[in-house]
Amino acid sequence: MSDNSCKVLVGGDWRPSKSTATFQAENPSSGELLPAQYPVSSRDEAMDELRAGSLAADALRNVGGETVGAFLETYASGIERRASELVEMAHTETALAKSPRLKDVELPRTTAQLRQAAGIARDGSWQRPIRDDARKIYSIFAPLDGPVLVIGPNNFPFAFNSVAGGDFAAAIAARNPVIAKANTGHPGTTHLLAQIAFEAVQSCGLPAATVQMIYRVPREVGLEMVSHPLIGATAFTGSKEAGLALKEAADRAGKPIYLEMSSINPIILLEGALRERGEAIAEEFFASCTLGAGQFCTNPGLVIVPDTESGRAWGDVARKKFEAATPGTLLGRGGREGLVKSVSILREFGAQIVCGGAPVPGPSPRFSNTLLQVTGEVFLKYPEQLQTEAFGPVALLVMSREIQEILSIIGQLHGNLTGTIYSDTTGADDSDYAMIEPRLRLRVGRLINDKMPTGVTVSPAMNHGGPFPATGHPGFTAVGLPASVERFVALHCYDNVRPHRLPPPLRA
Amino acid sequence: MSDNSCKVLVGGDWRPSKSTATFQAENPSSGELLPAQYPVSSRDEAMDELRAGSLAADALRNVGGETVGAFLETYASGIERRASELVEMAHTETALAKSPRLKDVELPRTTAQLRQAAGIARDGSWQRPIRDDARKIYSIFAPLDGPVLVIGPNNFPFAFNSVAGGDFAAAIAARNPVIAKANTGHPGTTHLLAQIAFEAVQSCGLPAATVQMIYRVPREVGLEMVSHPLIGATAFTGSKEAGLALKEAADRAGKPIYLEMSSINPIILLEGALRERGEAIAEEFFASCTLGAGQFCTNPGLVIVPDTESGRAWGDVARKKFEAATPGTLLGRGGREGLVKSVSILREFGAQIVCGGAPVPGPSPRFSNTLLQVTGEVFLKYPEQLQTEAFGPVALLVMSREIQEILSIIGQLHGNLTGTIYSDTTGADDSDYAMIEPRLRLRVGRLINDKMPTGVTVSPAMNHGGPFPATGHPGFTAVGLPASVERFVALHCYDNVRPHRLPPPLRA
Repeated sequence: MSDNSCKVLVGGDWRPSKSTATFQAENPSSGELLPAQYPVSSRDEAMDELRAGSLAADALRNVGGETVGAFLETYASGIERRASELVEMAHTETALAKSPRLKDVELPRTTAQLRQAAGIARDGSWQRPIRDDARKIYSIFAPLDGPVLVIGPNNFPFAFNSVAGGDFAAAIAARNPVIAKANTGHPGTTHLLAQIAFEAVQSCGLPAATVQMIYRVPREVGLEMVSHPLIGATAFTGSKEAGLALKEAADRAGKPIYLEMSSINPIILLEGALRERGEAIAEEFFASCTLGAGQFCTNPGLVIVPDTESGRAWGDVARKKFEAATPGTLLGRGGREGLVKSVSILREFGAQIVCGGAPVPGPSPRFSNTLLQVTGEVFLKYPEQLQTEAFGPVALLVMSREIQEILSIIGQLHGNLTGTIYSDTTGADDSDYAMIEPRLRLRVGRLINDKMPTGVTVSPAMNHGGPFPATGHPGFTAVGLPASVERFVALHCYDNVRPHRLPPPLRA
Repeated sequence: MSDNSCKVLVGGDWRPSKSTATFQAENPSSGELLPAQYPVSSRDEAMDELRAGSLAADALRNVGGETVGAFLETYASGIERRASELVEMAHTETALAKSPRLKDVELPRTTAQLRQAAGIARDGSWQRPIRDDARKIYSIFAPLDGPVLVIGPNNFPFAFNSVAGGDFAAAIAARNPVIAKANTGHPGTTHLLAQIAFEAVQSCGLPAATVQMIYRVPREVGLEMVSHPLIGATAFTGSKEAGLALKEAADRAGKPIYLEMSSINPIILLEGALRERGEAIAEEFFASCTLGAGQFCTNPGLVIVPDTESGRAWGDVARKKFEAATPGTLLGRGGREGLVKSVSILREFGAQIVCGGAPVPGPSPRFSNTLLQVTGEVFLKYPEQLQTEAFGPVALLVMSREIQEILSIIGQLHGNLTGTIYSDTTGADDSDYAMIEPRLRLRVGRLINDKMPTGVTVSPAMNHGGPFPATGHPGFTAVGLPASVERFVALHCYDNVRPHRLPPPLRA
């Protein structure tokens, strides 16, 4: 390990933390704690980051898009050069497969995203300049008035990492410094990435505090950071409980916060589709629900199944697949505890175990591939509780007898990232689709046909967002450039300002 | 008066309110209450509006932009046909001058804005469709999942009216029904406008509850409405106190709310400008600060003046103009009380009266044209209190000795809608400008040179917004199409959806 291991990156320096409190990450494969002691930063250290970030914001806002683009590309190349080290460390900390997942999918996705962001930084399209020459009024989207705090999730050590993922790339593309709060599940990976990022900051001549990184802060310090006068905005991906607490603090201070919190990603299977290709759909469902041990924000957690012969037969096929597969290793013990709790709530409110339902004994945290089942009638009795998210290889089948009941169930759904409808290809399901789609449309950010929701393509047309409480606002996406940049900007208008004083993109 | 006077417009019906509580508006010219008794709607009535609005949202979402455009134009023409009645009523309720203000400025601005919104509704540019054919991912901005509650201010009975102003036009252009909560200062004007709007709704065949209107609700009902599951979003223009209470309720429920709350619109006068054209600037300042009795959200309430011979002389010229002019009539007694309170806070924290400072005796609510003065040093001691907004013909001059002090003062400013710098034309002020502008830029939505901030042009490049607490989010504007529409949309993504099922703007 390099000599700045476990140091924090504050104001352009790798330095030992001022704090004495520490934590250790876990190796989920062995169930053992890893040796490195990472600091829990004190309030002082967090305030140092905010002050340095604020000064960096003042400087970065005057740096050209070309330089920011060069930084993002240099960083992407740096990640590629140290790919095997990164993959090794991420695998140790998360137990995610080195190949294909980490090496062949997530890492290339991360660098591709950074390079896309470089293009956006260069072309300035996110600024959307408007000139009204007749009235001498000009407007442009500009960087925020302070650094962006990024708090990343546990399930993507690269692609959603607070110092390398989509939020980071979007904030930087709009010339905002980032204060990265590492996910405590993969501090070593985040540390490596921060090293590579900081080297790129230096070699490209960006303000030194353009990228800062700490590992963990006490809860009250986190709440203070998101609401601090010096913060520009916050991007958070994680649990609803933590997200809502941060949201309340930020909202009260009038500070923008973007959250990706929870989603059970309803799947609606129509009768014709099951008759036509039930077996194939069961396979797709099984693969999607257990992929990465089910720890995706777009994991299909709720499936509305017709309570017919085909529907019940489909459930049997799915059950066999779930039972036959070896449960994957979870990201940590916390995930296993969360699943125990979620499944217990689902059962308490009437869901029956179809298969699985319990932790797998042994040192590494695993949970059996689990299907639960409930009737539409019971679901409609406890719609709140039966939408409890189970972050893992767990899904609840809601057996529904008729279209009116399905519509009622959809009417009770919370906001979700995605919603999927499977229908047959001959038109037998079309009238049901026509009734279901308009209602489901309002509950989700991304409406899908005939495929499972896991897999969030980085496309300008992607919406990785959705109505509350999937996120905090229905108009923004966390994935997809340039749209994801629109979260980290302020609208600046110039009225009667002398032409030579306008920012360059607004000059004639 | 027509027979539905004082009725509420709920779900396509003018009906007597279910409530028995009432209030009366005031004629500020006479200081007397007007005879009409308007209902304070009960919770029941508010819930009726939400339910009807929600159904209307489901219907309106499928109405073509052409029809919505026709509605907005029919409505604008209807307003013009009844212009004299509207002007008469608005004058009675607000004491704003019939001409030029109401008849020649505000009413044409209102109809022009509705017609601009019609253009936006027709061309659909607000939807910003994106097609990624290779990956079969498509996205588009769509109407919200419920009606928009618009709560308008007291100072623009037409142009910001909850049933005719900019928020109304923007919400409708994006095919969201509106529930208008009348400002209690001009219920009769709002009633007339709602009549005209509803006639246009009917003649254009829009869903009957596309436009609904109530006059007033108890505070707790307002808080429930902005946070109700059936609401799509809220647009509020008014006091910071009311705005923050509504924001907290809406935020907690994850419901979008857009607020325009308070702004003191700092003006920075540089030495060279005062030497060059101090007299002219004093006249502009006086005119802007006392226009409409100073009751504009962009009223210049804080002026940073060099504490030099030219600066002090400028203050004298301004004082004479303020003293010589007859104070205008305020919108109501509440405004007068607010000014007494604000001026008392400013004085308590060290501001000295230069002229005015007291209510004008007599039945009609007026407040003397008032200048206060404070040193930069004292301002920096009580920056919070000395930014108290005085909504009327009142400004605080901050006499500052040097550029460093000016920069410190700007560093203490809250978010504002506008900020203005006056500089000379020969370059003498350029180095000061270069230091001041970057800091002021971060505190305001619209940065102005060499003119006063009153006057908010309806331009695509306008930003009538700004950092908190001027508004709730730095990225949105309440004036300027199509940007103002972006507040009332949700991002809808379609992934692998069969081509014929895509909404028309996304089809190949």
